[in-house]
Amino acid sequence: MLVLNGSPLSTCTGRVLTCFFQMGLQLDKDFKLAPLGDFADIYKPEWLANQPFGQMPFLIDEEEQYVIFESRAIIKYVAAKIGSPLLPKQSDLKAYGIFEQACSIEHCNFDEPAHSIAAELYFAKFHGREGDVALADKNKALLAKRLKVYDQILSKQKYIAGDDLTLVDLFHLTYGNLNVTIGGAPALTDAEGHPNLARWWKEVTSLPGWVKYQELLPKN
Amino acid sequence: MLVLNGSPLSTCTGRVLTCFFQMGLQLDKDFKLAPLGDFADIYKPEWLANQPFGQMPFLIDEEEQYVIFESRAIIKYVAAKIGSPLLPKQSDLKAYGIFEQACSIEHCNFDEPAHSIAAELYFAKFHGREGDVALADKNKALLAKRLKVYDQILSKQKYIAGDDLTLVDLFHLTYGNLNVTIGGAPALTDAEGHPNLARWWKEVTSLPGWVKYQELLPKN
Repeated sequence: MLVLNGSPLSTCTGRVLTCFFQMGLQLDKDFKLAPLGDFADIYKPEWLANQPFGQMPFLIDEEEQYVIFESRAIIKYVAAKIGSPLLPKQSDLKAYGIFEQACSIEHCNFDEPAHSIAAELYFAKFHGREGDVALADKNKALLAKRLKVYDQILSKQKYIAGDDLTLVDLFHLTYGNLNVTIGGAPALTDAEGHPNLARWWKEVTSLPGWVKYQELLPKN
Repeated sequence: MLVLNGSPLSTCTGRVLTCFFQMGLQLDKDFKLAPLGDFADIYKPEWLANQPFGQMPFLIDEEEQYVIFESRAIIKYVAAKIGSPLLPKQSDLKAYGIFEQACSIEHCNFDEPAHSIAAELYFAKFHGREGDVALADKNKALLAKRLKVYDQILSKQKYIAGDDLTLVDLFHLTYGNLNVTIGGAPALTDAEGHPNLARWWKEVTSLPGWVKYQELLPKN
Protein backbone atom coordinates (compact mmCIF):
# COMPACT_ATOMS: atom_id res chain seq x y z
CA MET A 1 0.00 0.00 0.00
CA LEU A 2 1.05 3.60 -0.67
CA VAL A 3 0.54 5.77 2.41
CA LEU A 4 0.44 9.53 1.88
CA ASN A 5 1.19 11.47 5.06
CA GLY A 6 -0.12 15.02 4.95
CA SER A 7 -3.22 17.18 5.10
CA PRO A 8 -5.64 17.67 2.19
CA LEU A 9 -5.71 21.32 3.33
CA SER A 10 -2.05 21.77 2.39
CA THR A 11 -1.41 22.89 -1.19
CA CYS A 12 1.43 20.40 -1.67
CA THR A 13 -0.56 17.45 -0.35
CA GLY A 14 -3.40 18.65 -2.60
CA ARG A 15 -1.05 18.57 -5.58
CA VAL A 16 -0.27 14.91 -4.88
CA LEU A 17 -3.92 13.96 -4.29
CA THR A 18 -5.04 15.66 -7.51
CA CYS A 19 -2.41 13.81 -9.55
CA PHE A 20 -3.09 10.48 -7.83
CA PHE A 21 -6.81 10.79 -8.64
CA GLN A 22 -6.13 11.91 -12.23
CA MET A 23 -3.83 8.89 -12.72
CA GLY A 24 -6.77 6.71 -11.70
CA LEU A 25 -5.61 5.75 -8.20
CA GLN A 26 -8.41 5.17 -5.73
CA LEU A 27 -8.37 6.30 -2.13
CA ASP A 28 -8.35 3.40 0.38
CA LYS A 29 -7.89 0.93 -2.45
CA ASP A 30 -4.65 1.96 -4.17
CA PHE A 31 -3.43 4.40 -1.54
CA LYS A 32 -4.23 5.54 1.97
CA LEU A 33 -4.20 9.05 3.35
CA ALA A 34 -2.64 9.44 6.81
CA PRO A 35 -3.95 12.88 7.72
CA LEU A 36 -2.19 15.14 10.21
CA GLY A 37 -3.92 15.85 13.48
CA ASP A 38 -2.19 19.18 13.88
CA PHE A 39 -0.02 21.12 11.42
CA ALA A 40 2.64 21.43 14.15
CA ASP A 41 3.16 17.64 13.94
CA ILE A 42 5.60 18.24 11.06
CA TYR A 43 8.18 19.49 13.59
CA LYS A 44 8.02 16.35 15.75
CA PRO A 45 10.87 13.79 15.67
CA GLU A 46 8.63 11.03 14.23
CA TRP A 47 7.82 13.29 11.26
CA LEU A 48 11.37 14.59 10.86
CA ALA A 49 12.64 11.00 10.65
CA ASN A 50 10.83 10.76 7.31
CA GLN A 51 10.86 14.40 6.16
CA PRO A 52 13.93 16.05 7.71
CA PHE A 53 13.02 19.56 6.46
CA GLY A 54 9.77 19.54 8.47
CA GLN A 55 7.51 19.95 5.47
CA MET A 56 4.58 17.93 4.12
CA PRO A 57 3.69 15.56 2.56
CA PHE A 58 5.77 12.38 2.46
CA LEU A 59 4.86 8.98 1.04
CA ILE A 60 5.59 5.50 2.32
CA ASP A 61 5.55 2.75 -0.28
CA GLU A 62 5.07 -0.16 2.13
CA GLU A 63 5.60 -2.80 -0.54
CA GLU A 64 9.06 -1.42 -1.35
CA GLN A 65 9.87 -0.18 2.18
CA TYR A 66 10.61 3.14 0.54
CA VAL A 67 10.01 6.66 1.80
CA ILE A 68 9.93 9.67 -0.52
CA PHE A 69 9.07 13.35 0.03
CA GLU A 70 8.66 16.52 -2.10
CA SER A 71 5.24 16.53 -3.77
CA ARG A 72 6.41 16.64 -7.41
CA ALA A 73 8.91 13.82 -6.79
CA ILE A 74 6.26 11.67 -5.07
CA ILE A 75 4.00 12.14 -8.09
CA LYS A 76 6.73 11.34 -10.64
CA TYR A 77 7.80 8.26 -8.66
CA VAL A 78 4.28 6.85 -8.50
CA ALA A 79 3.62 7.72 -12.16
CA ALA A 80 6.78 5.83 -13.18
CA LYS A 81 5.79 2.92 -10.93
CA ILE A 82 2.35 2.49 -12.47
CA GLY A 83 3.45 3.53 -16.01
CA SER A 84 1.07 6.47 -16.22
CA PRO A 85 0.93 8.11 -19.68
CA LEU A 86 0.81 11.48 -17.88
CA LEU A 87 4.59 11.12 -17.30
CA PRO A 88 6.60 11.24 -20.57
CA LYS A 89 9.23 8.51 -20.80
CA GLN A 90 12.95 9.36 -20.91
CA SER A 91 13.21 7.22 -24.03
CA ASP A 92 10.80 9.59 -25.78
CA LEU A 93 13.53 12.25 -25.76
CA LYS A 94 11.67 15.26 -27.14
CA ALA A 95 8.60 14.70 -24.98
CA TYR A 96 10.78 14.14 -21.89
CA GLY A 97 12.76 17.33 -22.60
CA ILE A 98 9.73 19.54 -23.06
CA PHE A 99 8.09 18.00 -19.98
CA GLU A 100 11.12 18.75 -17.81
CA GLN A 101 11.26 22.25 -19.33
CA ALA A 102 7.62 22.75 -18.32
CA CYS A 103 8.36 21.42 -14.81
CA SER A 104 11.07 24.04 -14.40
CA ILE A 105 8.80 26.78 -15.77
CA GLU A 106 6.13 25.78 -13.26
CA HIS A 107 8.64 25.78 -10.42
CA CYS A 108 10.59 28.98 -11.21
CA ASN A 109 8.23 31.16 -13.17
CA PHE A 110 4.85 30.20 -11.71
CA ASP A 111 5.19 28.67 -8.28
CA GLU A 112 7.74 31.08 -6.82
CA PRO A 113 5.57 34.22 -7.18
CA ALA A 114 2.31 32.27 -6.71
CA HIS A 115 3.31 30.79 -3.36
CA SER A 116 4.83 34.05 -2.22
CA ILE A 117 1.53 35.86 -2.88
CA ALA A 118 -0.36 33.13 -1.02
CA ALA A 119 2.09 33.32 1.89
CA GLU A 120 1.38 37.03 2.38
CA LEU A 121 -2.31 37.29 1.49
CA TYR A 122 -3.57 33.98 2.85
CA PHE A 123 -1.23 31.92 5.06
CA ALA A 124 0.21 34.84 7.10
CA LYS A 125 -2.90 35.01 9.29
CA PHE A 126 -2.55 31.36 10.28
CA HIS A 127 0.95 32.17 11.54
CA GLY A 128 -0.41 35.09 13.54
CA ARG A 129 1.23 37.79 11.46
CA GLU A 130 0.16 40.57 9.13
CA GLY A 131 0.76 39.79 5.46
CA ASP A 132 3.27 42.00 3.61
CA VAL A 133 1.01 43.62 1.00
CA ALA A 134 3.86 45.40 -0.81
CA LEU A 135 5.70 42.11 -1.29
CA ALA A 136 2.50 40.46 -2.51
CA ASP A 137 1.98 43.30 -5.00
CA LYS A 138 5.51 42.90 -6.34
CA ASN A 139 4.90 39.19 -6.88
CA LYS A 140 1.47 39.81 -8.41
CA ALA A 141 3.10 42.04 -11.04
CA LEU A 142 5.78 39.41 -11.70
CA LEU A 143 3.22 36.59 -11.99
CA ALA A 144 1.06 38.71 -14.31
CA LYS A 145 4.03 39.26 -16.63
CA ARG A 146 4.78 35.56 -16.72
CA LEU A 147 1.17 34.52 -17.27
CA LYS A 148 1.21 36.69 -20.41
CA VAL A 149 3.99 34.37 -21.67
CA TYR A 150 1.94 31.33 -20.64
CA ASP A 151 -0.91 32.72 -22.78
CA GLN A 152 1.49 33.01 -25.72
CA ILE A 153 2.80 29.44 -25.23
CA LEU A 154 -0.76 28.13 -24.96
CA SER A 155 -1.68 29.85 -28.23
CA LYS A 156 0.65 27.39 -29.99
CA GLN A 157 -0.03 24.19 -28.05
CA LYS A 158 -2.89 22.77 -26.01
CA TYR A 159 -0.97 22.13 -22.78
CA ILE A 160 2.12 23.40 -20.98
CA ALA A 161 4.31 20.54 -22.21
CA GLY A 162 2.92 20.22 -25.74
CA ASP A 163 -0.34 18.94 -27.21
CA ASP A 164 -0.87 16.23 -24.58
CA LEU A 165 -1.98 16.66 -21.01
CA THR A 166 0.82 15.77 -18.58
CA LEU A 167 1.36 15.92 -14.83
CA VAL A 168 2.87 19.39 -15.03
CA ASP A 169 -0.48 20.91 -16.03
CA LEU A 170 -1.87 19.57 -12.76
CA PHE A 171 1.12 20.84 -10.76
CA HIS A 172 -0.31 24.36 -11.23
CA LEU A 173 -3.73 23.65 -9.79
CA THR A 174 -3.52 24.14 -6.02
CA TYR A 175 -1.58 27.42 -5.99
CA GLY A 176 -3.38 28.63 -9.13
CA ASN A 177 -6.77 28.05 -7.55
CA LEU A 178 -5.77 29.68 -4.26
CA ASN A 179 -4.51 32.71 -6.16
CA VAL A 180 -7.73 33.00 -8.16
CA THR A 181 -9.60 33.05 -4.82
CA ILE A 182 -7.42 35.75 -3.24
CA GLY A 183 -7.05 37.90 -6.38
CA GLY A 184 -3.41 36.98 -6.96
CA ALA A 185 -3.73 35.77 -10.54
CA PRO A 186 -6.69 37.39 -12.35
CA ALA A 187 -5.16 36.39 -15.72
CA LEU A 188 -6.11 32.74 -15.16
CA THR A 189 -9.80 33.48 -15.59
CA ASP A 190 -9.51 36.47 -17.95
CA ALA A 191 -10.99 35.01 -21.14
CA GLU A 192 -10.82 38.33 -22.99
CA GLY A 193 -7.26 39.41 -22.21
CA HIS A 194 -5.73 35.93 -21.94
CA PRO A 195 -7.93 33.65 -24.08
CA ASN A 196 -5.50 30.72 -24.37
CA LEU A 197 -4.56 30.73 -20.72
CA ALA A 198 -8.21 30.97 -19.64
CA ARG A 199 -9.17 28.13 -22.02
CA TRP A 200 -6.44 25.93 -20.49
CA TRP A 201 -7.33 26.92 -16.93
CA LYS A 202 -11.01 26.10 -17.49
CA GLU A 203 -10.09 22.72 -18.88
CA VAL A 204 -7.60 21.71 -16.17
CA THR A 205 -9.91 22.79 -13.35
CA SER A 206 -12.60 20.55 -14.87
CA LEU A 207 -10.42 17.43 -14.83
CA PRO A 208 -11.75 14.52 -12.71
CA GLY A 209 -8.60 14.49 -10.57
CA TRP A 210 -9.11 18.08 -9.48
CA VAL A 211 -12.87 17.61 -8.93
CA LYS A 212 -12.24 14.51 -6.78
CA TYR A 213 -9.62 16.30 -4.70
CA GLN A 214 -12.02 19.19 -4.10
CA GLU A 215 -14.54 16.74 -2.64
CA LEU A 216 -12.07 15.96 0.17
CA LEU A 217 -12.08 19.58 1.34
CA PRO A 218 -14.44 21.06 3.95
CA LYS A 219 -17.41 22.72 2.29
CA ASN A 220 -16.81 26.33 3.41
CA MET B 1 25.61 19.88 -33.11
CA LEU B 2 24.24 21.14 -29.81
CA VAL B 3 24.36 24.94 -29.58
CA LEU B 4 24.12 26.49 -26.11
CA ASN B 5 23.01 30.11 -26.22
CA GLY B 6 23.99 32.05 -23.11
CA SER B 7 26.84 33.59 -21.19
CA PRO B 8 29.35 31.63 -19.08
CA LEU B 9 29.02 34.54 -16.61
CA SER B 10 25.38 33.62 -15.93
CA THR B 11 24.83 31.14 -13.11
CA CYS B 12 22.28 29.13 -15.11
CA THR B 13 24.48 28.88 -18.20
CA GLY B 14 27.31 27.89 -15.85
CA ARG B 15 25.13 25.12 -14.43
CA VAL B 16 24.69 23.67 -17.92
CA LEU B 17 28.37 24.03 -18.86
CA THR B 18 29.48 22.33 -15.63
CA CYS B 19 27.16 19.37 -16.23
CA PHE B 20 28.07 19.12 -19.93
CA PHE B 21 31.78 18.96 -19.04
CA GLN B 22 31.17 16.47 -16.22
CA MET B 23 29.22 14.24 -18.61
CA GLY B 24 32.28 14.22 -20.86
CA LEU B 25 31.05 16.56 -23.59
CA GLN B 26 33.76 18.62 -25.26
CA LEU B 27 33.42 22.25 -26.24
CA ASP B 28 33.53 22.85 -30.01
CA LYS B 29 33.48 19.11 -30.63
CA ASP B 30 30.23 17.89 -29.00
CA PHE B 31 28.64 21.28 -28.41
CA LYS B 32 29.16 24.93 -29.27
CA LEU B 33 28.69 27.92 -27.04
CA ALA B 34 26.94 30.90 -28.66
CA PRO B 35 27.84 33.62 -26.17
CA LEU B 36 25.74 36.72 -25.68
CA GLY B 37 27.21 40.04 -26.78
CA ASP B 38 25.15 41.96 -24.25
CA PHE B 39 22.93 40.70 -21.42
CA ALA B 40 20.11 42.91 -22.76
CA ASP B 41 19.98 40.68 -25.87
CA ILE B 42 17.65 38.34 -23.96
CA TYR B 43 14.84 40.87 -24.37
CA LYS B 44 15.17 41.04 -28.19
CA PRO B 45 12.60 39.37 -30.47
CA GLU B 46 15.18 36.91 -31.90
CA TRP B 47 15.92 35.67 -28.36
CA LEU B 48 12.29 35.66 -27.24
CA ALA B 49 11.39 33.46 -30.22
CA ASN B 50 13.40 30.69 -28.53
CA GLN B 51 13.08 31.67 -24.85
CA PRO B 52 9.77 33.53 -24.46
CA PHE B 53 10.40 34.42 -20.79
CA GLY B 54 13.52 36.44 -21.70
CA GLN B 55 15.89 34.33 -19.62
CA MET B 56 19.06 32.39 -20.43
CA PRO B 57 20.25 29.93 -21.57
CA PHE B 58 18.52 27.96 -24.30
CA LEU B 59 19.82 25.05 -26.36
CA ILE B 60 19.36 24.24 -30.03
CA ASP B 61 19.81 20.58 -30.96
CA GLU B 62 20.43 21.13 -34.67
CA GLU B 63 20.31 17.43 -35.51
CA GLU B 64 16.80 17.15 -34.10
CA GLN B 65 15.68 20.70 -34.96
CA TYR B 66 14.71 20.98 -31.35
CA VAL B 67 14.89 23.97 -29.00
CA ILE B 68 14.80 23.62 -25.22
CA PHE B 69 15.28 26.09 -22.37
CA GLU B 70 15.51 26.02 -18.53
CA SER B 71 18.99 24.94 -17.45
CA ARG B 72 18.01 21.83 -15.47
CA ALA B 73 15.75 20.62 -18.31
CA ILE B 74 18.50 21.18 -20.90
CA ILE B 75 20.87 19.10 -18.78
CA LYS B 76 18.36 16.27 -18.23
CA TYR B 77 17.49 16.20 -21.94
CA VAL B 78 21.12 15.93 -23.04
CA ALA B 79 21.89 13.37 -20.31
CA ALA B 80 18.99 11.20 -21.53
CA LYS B 81 20.13 11.64 -25.16
CA ILE B 82 23.68 10.44 -24.47
CA GLY B 83 22.66 7.91 -21.79
CA SER B 84 24.74 9.53 -19.03
CA PRO B 85 24.90 7.49 -15.80
CA LEU B 86 24.59 10.81 -13.91
CA LEU B 87 20.86 10.73 -14.73
CA PRO B 88 19.02 7.85 -13.00
CA LYS B 89 16.69 5.97 -15.31
CA GLN B 90 12.91 5.97 -14.73
CA SER B 91 13.02 2.18 -14.89
CA ASP B 92 15.31 2.19 -11.82
CA LEU B 93 12.33 3.35 -9.74
CA LYS B 94 13.96 3.95 -6.37
CA ALA B 95 16.95 5.78 -7.84
CA TYR B 96 14.67 7.87 -10.06
CA GLY B 97 12.43 8.76 -7.11
CA ILE B 98 15.25 9.84 -4.82
CA PHE B 99 16.87 11.78 -7.68
CA GLU B 100 13.67 13.70 -8.38
CA GLN B 101 13.28 14.27 -4.61
CA ALA B 102 16.79 15.75 -4.56
CA CYS B 103 15.99 17.92 -7.61
CA SER B 104 13.02 19.40 -5.75
CA ILE B 105 15.08 19.91 -2.58
CA GLU B 106 17.71 21.76 -4.63
CA HIS B 107 15.07 23.90 -6.28
CA CYS B 108 12.85 24.74 -3.28
CA ASN B 109 15.09 24.47 -0.25
CA PHE B 110 18.47 25.52 -1.64
CA ASP B 111 18.10 27.57 -4.81
CA GLU B 112 15.25 29.81 -3.68
CA PRO B 113 17.10 31.39 -0.73
CA ALA B 114 20.53 31.08 -2.47
CA HIS B 115 19.48 33.01 -5.54
CA SER B 116 17.58 35.55 -3.49
CA ILE B 117 20.74 36.28 -1.42
CA ALA B 118 22.78 36.59 -4.62
CA ALA B 119 20.17 38.91 -6.15
CA GLU B 120 20.47 41.34 -3.23
CA LEU B 121 24.15 41.11 -2.34
CA TYR B 122 25.67 40.63 -5.79
CA PHE B 123 23.43 41.17 -8.83
CA ALA B 124 21.61 44.29 -7.54
CA LYS B 125 24.55 46.56 -8.38
CA PHE B 126 24.51 45.41 -12.02
CA HIS B 127 20.91 46.57 -12.19
CA GLY B 128 21.83 49.92 -10.73
CA ARG B 129 20.03 49.43 -7.44
CA GLU B 130 20.94 49.03 -3.79
CA GLY B 131 20.63 45.47 -2.55
CA ASP B 132 18.03 44.81 0.18
CA VAL B 133 20.26 43.69 3.05
CA ALA B 134 17.36 42.82 5.37
CA LEU B 135 15.86 40.51 2.75
CA ALA B 136 19.29 38.92 2.20
CA ASP B 137 19.66 38.37 5.96
CA LYS B 138 16.26 36.70 6.13
CA ASN B 139 17.26 34.32 3.33
CA LYS B 140 20.69 33.70 4.86
CA ALA B 141 18.99 32.51 8.04
CA LEU B 142 16.62 30.31 6.04
CA LEU B 143 19.45 28.81 3.97
CA ALA B 144 21.54 28.19 7.11
CA LYS B 145 18.65 26.24 8.65
CA ARG B 146 18.27 24.14 5.54
CA LEU B 147 21.98 23.48 5.16
CA LYS B 148 21.89 21.96 8.65
CA VAL B 149 19.44 19.43 7.24
CA TYR B 150 21.71 18.88 4.23
CA ASP B 151 24.51 18.08 6.71
CA GLN B 152 22.25 15.53 8.38
CA ILE B 153 21.28 13.93 5.06
CA LEU B 154 24.93 13.80 3.98
CA SER B 155 25.86 12.05 7.23
CA LYS B 156 23.87 9.04 5.99
CA GLN B 157 24.76 9.04 2.29
CA LYS B 158 27.63 10.30 0.15
CA TYR B 159 25.62 12.48 -2.21
CA ILE B 160 22.32 14.38 -2.29
CA ALA B 161 20.49 11.62 -4.15
CA GLY B 162 22.09 8.61 -2.44
CA ASP B 163 25.54 7.02 -2.59
CA ASP B 164 26.18 7.84 -6.24
CA LEU B 165 27.05 11.19 -7.73
CA THR B 166 24.21 12.49 -9.92
CA LEU B 167 23.47 15.67 -11.84
CA VAL B 168 21.65 17.19 -8.88
CA ASP B 169 24.88 17.49 -6.89
CA LEU B 170 26.21 19.66 -9.70
CA PHE B 171 23.03 21.74 -9.85
CA HIS B 172 24.12 23.33 -6.54
CA LEU B 173 27.53 24.52 -7.74
CA THR B 174 27.07 27.92 -9.36
CA TYR B 175 24.83 29.49 -6.71
CA GLY B 176 26.64 27.67 -3.90
CA ASN B 177 30.00 29.01 -5.06
CA LEU B 178 28.68 32.54 -5.50
CA ASN B 179 27.22 32.43 -2.00
CA VAL B 180 30.49 31.20 -0.51
CA THR B 181 32.17 34.23 -2.13
CA ILE B 182 29.65 36.79 -0.84
CA GLY B 183 29.24 35.25 2.62
CA GLY B 184 25.75 33.92 1.96
CA ALA B 185 26.38 30.29 2.89
CA PRO B 186 29.25 29.90 5.38
CA ALA B 187 28.00 26.40 6.26
CA LEU B 188 29.28 25.02 2.93
CA THR B 189 32.91 25.40 3.98
CA ASP B 190 32.44 24.98 7.74
CA ALA B 191 34.22 21.65 8.30
CA GLU B 192 33.80 21.85 12.09
CA GLY B 193 30.14 22.74 12.38
CA HIS B 194 28.94 20.95 9.23
CA PRO B 195 31.46 18.17 8.56
CA ASN B 196 29.36 16.13 6.13
CA LEU B 197 28.23 19.12 4.13
CA ALA B 198 31.78 20.51 3.94
CA ARG B 199 33.13 17.08 2.87
CA TRP B 200 30.55 16.97 0.07
CA TRP B 201 31.16 20.57 -0.95
CA LYS B 202 34.91 20.03 -1.15
CA GLU B 203 34.40 16.98 -3.30
CA VAL B 204 31.89 18.48 -5.76
CA THR B 205 33.93 21.65 -6.24
CA SER B 206 36.91 19.44 -7.17
CA LEU B 207 35.06 17.62 -9.95
CA PRO B 208 36.54 18.00 -13.45
CA GLY B 209 33.30 19.47 -14.81
CA TRP B 210 33.41 22.34 -12.32
CA VAL B 211 37.15 22.92 -12.82
CA LYS B 212 36.72 23.04 -16.60
CA TYR B 213 33.83 25.48 -16.35
CA GLN B 214 35.90 27.76 -14.08
CA GLU B 215 38.54 27.95 -16.82
CA LEU B 216 36.02 29.66 -19.10
CA LEU B 217 35.60 32.56 -16.68
CA PRO B 218 37.65 35.77 -16.69
CA LYS B 219 40.56 35.54 -14.26
CA ASN B 220 39.64 38.36 -11.87
